Amino acid sequence: MQSPEQKVRNYIKESRIRGTRLLQKLVQEPSTRGNESGAQAVIIEKCRELGLEMDIWEIGNSGLTVHPAFCSDRKDFNGNPNAVGIMRGTGGGKSMILNGHIDVVPAGDPKDWDKDVFSGHIECGKLFGRGSTDMKGGTTSLLMAIEAIKNSGIKLKGDVIFQSVIEEESGGAGTLATVLRGYKADAAIIPEPTNMKLFPKQQGSMWFRISVKGKGAHGGTRYEGVNAIEKAMLVIDRLRSLESQRNERITDPFFESIPIPIPINIGKIHAGDWPSSVPDLAVIEGRMGVAPNETQEEAKREMYEAIVGVCNDDPWLKENNPELEWFGASWLPGDLDPEHELIHVLSESFKEIKEQSPLIEASPWATDGGILSKVGGVPVVVFGPGVTETAHQANEYIKLEDIFEAAEIIALALLRWCEISE
Amino acid sequence: MQSPEQKVRNYIKESRIRGTRLLQKLVQEPSTRGNESGAQAVIIEKCRELGLEMDIWEIGNSGLTVHPAFCSDRKDFNGNPNAVGIMRGTGGGKSMILNGHIDVVPAGDPKDWDKDVFSGHIECGKLFGRGSTDMKGGTTSLLMAIEAIKNSGIKLKGDVIFQSVIEEESGGAGTLATVLRGYKADAAIIPEPTNMKLFPKQQGSMWFRISVKGKGAHGGTRYEGVNAIEKAMLVIDRLRSLESQRNERITDPFFESIPIPIPINIGKIHAGDWPSSVPDLAVIEGRMGVAPNETQEEAKREMYEAIVGVCNDDPWLKENNPELEWFGASWLPGDLDPEHELIHVLSESFKEIKEQSPLIEASPWATDGGILSKVGGVPVVVFGPGVTETAHQANEYIKLEDIFEAAEIIALALLRWCEISE
Repeated sequence: MQSPEQKVRNYIKESRIRGTRLLQKLVQEPSTRGNESGAQAVIIEKCRELGLEMDIWEIGNSGLTVHPAFCSDRKDFNGNPNAVGIMRGTGGGKSMILNGHIDVVPAGDPKDWDKDVFSGHIECGKLFGRGSTDMKGGTTSLLMAIEAIKNSGIKLKGDVIFQSVIEEESGGAGTLATVLRGYKADAAIIPEPTNMKLFPKQQGSMWFRISVKGKGAHGGTRYEGVNAIEKAMLVIDRLRSLESQRNERITDPFFESIPIPIPINIGKIHAGDWPSSVPDLAVIEGRMGVAPNETQEEAKREMYEAIVGVCNDDPWLKENNPELEWFGASWLPGDLDPEHELIHVLSESFKEIKEQSPLIEASPWATDGGILSKVGGVPVVVFGPGVTETAHQANEYIKLEDIFEAAEIIALALLRWCEISE
Repeated sequence: MQSPEQKVRNYIKESRIRGTRLLQKLVQEPSTRGNESGAQAVIIEKCRELGLEMDIWEIGNSGLTVHPAFCSDRKDFNGNPNAVGIMRGTGGGKSMILNGHIDVVPAGDPKDWDKDVFSGHIECGKLFGRGSTDMKGGTTSLLMAIEAIKNSGIKLKGDVIFQSVIEEESGGAGTLATVLRGYKADAAIIPEPTNMKLFPKQQGSMWFRISVKGKGAHGGTRYEGVNAIEKAMLVIDRLRSLESQRNERITDPFFESIPIPIPINIGKIHAGDWPSSVPDLAVIEGRMGVAPNETQEEAKREMYEAIVGVCNDDPWLKENNPELEWFGASWLPGDLDPEHELIHVLSESFKEIKEQSPLIEASPWATDGGILSKVGGVPVVVFGPGVTETAHQANEYIKLEDIFEAAEIIALALLRWCEISE
């Protein structure tokens, strides 16, 4: 007779074609922001087939938009619901949230893609399409794990709460809505594409905008003006110093292999509209990384002080202070103790499948894990199939083999974490 | 009995109201690019009233657009002609071109103006409106000078060739068309707003665009990319060094009071479109000043060499060379010997009216004088009423008194240069 572990592993091996087809259907629904309903319908259909207790709701109420962690410029959440499916436990075990986001980033220029952006076509064991790796592949692993347990006739003591949320790519309002709706658990796994590494810690991030003033003049008498671009360059130089200072302080061994654990990225600069005029305004936009063990407020304060520093060193900026705004997206960092039992359970499951220990690192990007842990108080580990290098790029793909392995690892972790009933 | 000089001076004094009315009518015709016909009609009407030999033609033929000095992205010159009016001399005297451009720069934001952009209203001796100082005021001085001579019954030996041209603000195609149509003279005066200074030399200029490549990456792992903004900053630093080198070489005393005789202005930088992405392209646009005694080709070569220099110092740029383009507007520099007789004649006339010597300097901007002198071979001085500070700005204005004084000075210069017949 097979052990429960063998049963679910065998089930997953035998359901590869069905899992692949599920992922293909998910990728073929172009669930960019505001268009998540089609892909959510595929999720809901699958959850119903698995007999999960469903909770489907349009977010935007229950104090969501006034919550301090709310971050979205989206006006309309109607028609594109969150979906939660619960595999209710028999009681007495620890519960687990399995969280995946259904939204995908824009396709970029379709001409950069070899095939249709949402083709879902398979080549050499890879499935291609926007969202394949970020993160419909991970969500497929979750649903394959649940199906394997359910259809192997195994009952767990703890609840398994599967969440398919919107808005992750724009700041996490979907996951925040699950927290505000009351979903909690003893732990959570988010299968973002970590290349099968375990990320107990995640870099948080915030977007900033710095508007640097100059003084207009004709380019032929440029000495009569003050070039906002030159002043912006002073600010950028200072931000680079700030980045060095902040990263020198990071001694966490999880960041050892990461050249810049909490980068300050200068993503945009726009200044001027006429070649022969001195520009009177330069606008810089960027992303500031937040360390797992610091608050966003602490990081903001350091940015503010750096800009005060530039102003003190430059007479023009002293009289004409740049404006600093925090706008758009913002993600809380995640900071789980690497000795947490969740890490042990996942590591053991990983070893069983992969016959080696997992790499445990800190993620260079934020996930909904920040909201689940910092707002929801749920211990979170980010672990999933796929590699970030292909996420947000043209010809995004995921290796199908990774999805199946992740499904097995997560299934075993559920058996251990939630405990088998009787 | 009055001397001819006294006659024209008195005539101008008595025709102030008529001159003011002419300027008002010119300013009230909004002759922005492509809309020059209304103002040209006012000019043509005035020239016909003065009995000048008229030549009115639409430019764009006669090899204009293939000429090496042609610089315009305008597709259609129909309906907005150049106008030339000749006061034919009796023979044996030196000829003079009087050149003014009829096109005006855009109004900018009308909300920045206290009254209508093209109001032509008068307050405290100042006439307001786009084009008042740049350069319909100067053109009014020219027509008042011609009228004074003509209506005082004075005949000149040399021809006076009055030119009202389009396209100066966009690179001088209108004046180039007069040269290609065969107009030449022994000297030319262009009454751009020099604040009554004489500019025998004018800074030329050219627009450049430098595209600096980077390598895209997610902002959270920015070390995997190459930030095009940082690389563009290296290029900008190098351009500042180049500007210093080029200006250290300028020993011409005419530039003594000018902090940066031939500036390199960084007018625009645009890079990136997402705060949390590493930008893979930064585009810089600017204006390079050209010294009166150098060619545009020499200046371009120095810019090219500076960029090669940055590339040699930076491994990324060495492999990924920025692209340098010369685009849009381009103005030839002007370089008249300050001992030229034209300067003497104008200076003497100036002293007679103003009872002091004129300031003789180099202009910090280019005019159609570059084309007239470098392509047409005509000695040019730029001299006129109005101040550049108000040109291209909201609430542009000109002091009427300056127009009348400039008219007297130019009229006396014509009497001297072209010589009075009998």
